[in-house]
Amino acid sequence: MPQTHKPNVAPKPNVAPKPNVAVSIGDPNGIGPEILLKCLSDPSLANLCNIVLVGPESVLSFYKERFDLDVSFDHIEISVPDSFRVQPGHIDQDAGKVAMDAVSKAVDLCFSKKVDAMVTCPISKEAISLAGYDFPGHTEFIADRIGCSEYLMMMVSDRLRVGLVTGHIPISQVPQGVTGEKIRATLRVMRLSLVQDFGIAKPNMAVLGLNPHAGDGGVLGCEDRDIILPEVMWAREQGFNIMGPLPADGFFGSSNWKATDGVVAMYHDQGLIPFKALSFGSGVNFTAGLPIVRTSPDHGTAFDIAGSFLANESSLKKAVECAVEIVQKRKLLT
Amino acid sequence: MPQTHKPNVAPKPNVAPKPNVAVSIGDPNGIGPEILLKCLSDPSLANLCNIVLVGPESVLSFYKERFDLDVSFDHIEISVPDSFRVQPGHIDQDAGKVAMDAVSKAVDLCFSKKVDAMVTCPISKEAISLAGYDFPGHTEFIADRIGCSEYLMMMVSDRLRVGLVTGHIPISQVPQGVTGEKIRATLRVMRLSLVQDFGIAKPNMAVLGLNPHAGDGGVLGCEDRDIILPEVMWAREQGFNIMGPLPADGFFGSSNWKATDGVVAMYHDQGLIPFKALSFGSGVNFTAGLPIVRTSPDHGTAFDIAGSFLANESSLKKAVECAVEIVQKRKLLT
Repeated sequence: MPQTHKPNVAPKPNVAPKPNVAVSIGDPNGIGPEILLKCLSDPSLANLCNIVLVGPESVLSFYKERFDLDVSFDHIEISVPDSFRVQPGHIDQDAGKVAMDAVSKAVDLCFSKKVDAMVTCPISKEAISLAGYDFPGHTEFIADRIGCSEYLMMMVSDRLRVGLVTGHIPISQVPQGVTGEKIRATLRVMRLSLVQDFGIAKPNMAVLGLNPHAGDGGVLGCEDRDIILPEVMWAREQGFNIMGPLPADGFFGSSNWKATDGVVAMYHDQGLIPFKALSFGSGVNFTAGLPIVRTSPDHGTAFDIAGSFLANESSLKKAVECAVEIVQKRKLLT
Repeated sequence: MPQTHKPNVAPKPNVAPKPNVAVSIGDPNGIGPEILLKCLSDPSLANLCNIVLVGPESVLSFYKERFDLDVSFDHIEISVPDSFRVQPGHIDQDAGKVAMDAVSKAVDLCFSKKVDAMVTCPISKEAISLAGYDFPGHTEFIADRIGCSEYLMMMVSDRLRVGLVTGHIPISQVPQGVTGEKIRATLRVMRLSLVQDFGIAKPNMAVLGLNPHAGDGGVLGCEDRDIILPEVMWAREQGFNIMGPLPADGFFGSSNWKATDGVVAMYHDQGLIPFKALSFGSGVNFTAGLPIVRTSPDHGTAFDIAGSFLANESSLKKAVECAVEIVQKRKLLT
């Protein structure tokens, strides 16, 4: 009998082992621990990957007890300051430190190949700032820690992938933020990611115009013609399959977006409004361009409902699934 | 008998007479005449209203013959210059003049109460400019002709109504264009229109923030807190049922927009991207705040397919239906 020599766990021949995914706990006072514990109870995720929870045992026990959950899990301990107590909904310096220690540890696990990908639960900008971290969010912290300067925040769903040339800046700073250099880097990172992370050999890309009607030949602003168009031309010369700059409203009003593998938006609301309107809550945040695979749910700490068992784990679940898919696509290339 | 002056259409007792709707032909070289003739062949529109076509007989005959259409219609003649010939797809000074003469005539018909509403087929900005008209579009021309300074371009569909604080300007001019005065006028016109034109006694309104995350307390721009919020507070003091300034991506990502009767967007793409993405091609342009009722389809002259019988009349049909509904709502108030 062929299987007798592999008594307990050995995978069947030709079946790849399940990827290991580190999930950082997020702010201990936010909904991170709750949605993580809920995901750990989900058998479909357990079939897909091994989740390695990165966070303090004491925090996990607090929520397991509070919600009367009986789940077991692999876990990497994060130590907490003596003064720290879990207080759902509170903005707290110690909580900020714990959250960031977990992120750092998850990055280390990725780099030492102990895990294949990392997923981050939400942190509080205020709490991490109190703890002395001067970063607008996970993306910048992780890129900085890795020493990677050309990366891209991408929103990913089953229907749509959107990358942003500019991010969390006031609209008044958008025009000067849309430089040829930034556009070119965005196009480059997105195309590479569509190929290696999403397995699309020849991706269709679309670049949105900055101004209404993509400037209407210069009447409604000249950036589309003078700054964006030359970069699209450059990309075409490199062999990119790319359209633009396109009037953004017409693009999302027609069905053109459905035939597009990646959309480059010039600013936050231009990309995130249609992404959220058309993705019906199934969006995931993915940091393209990094040597490691990192995704996150598309929501925040939700302090207002923390500790209430009201939090919905579906976006975290999607983030884990997306990370696993990207790991598998990248493995096909190696 | 009050209806004797309309000998052919006498309504049944207790049934309101069908409204008369003037439809201006648009640019004779665009798709306007074609979609108009197609709408005139539609029995459901004929049951709803009497369409009065405003345009030159010669242009209508040209397209009737070309498309082998046998439709009859009420029609108000517009004279053409001797030099004028219909040339589908061409940008032409005479065509621009004919188009604007038809718009002027339709406005006159509304003012003299010969019709109850007007619908405008698309004009070409270039052609009307060649003909000496210095207007960005219908909306401004009609408002100017009527002498109305407080009006609002609203996009209307079955699912969503969106008004814009700023319109066809470069994104770099948006921040200075978003003034307290403009916001207040927009809120006032939209609320009045929701009540009188759409029959919503106590409309729910939402105001979007200018910056990402509505400025995040000032970190991502101060206009939301310093300029928009005071106007929302003012509106609330006036008894408006109104929320805002709201992060625009979150608003359209949640189902909140479905419970909102009118959404105020700060700039073109912020309002038109979600409108077009969520309205699936059924959008209509309505000029709120005018004493007359005026709607239009949400597309242009489509010179590239003019004369080919490929044009889709559904948006014009929607525009006529919307105009009829608004006429009926306004009548309920008088």
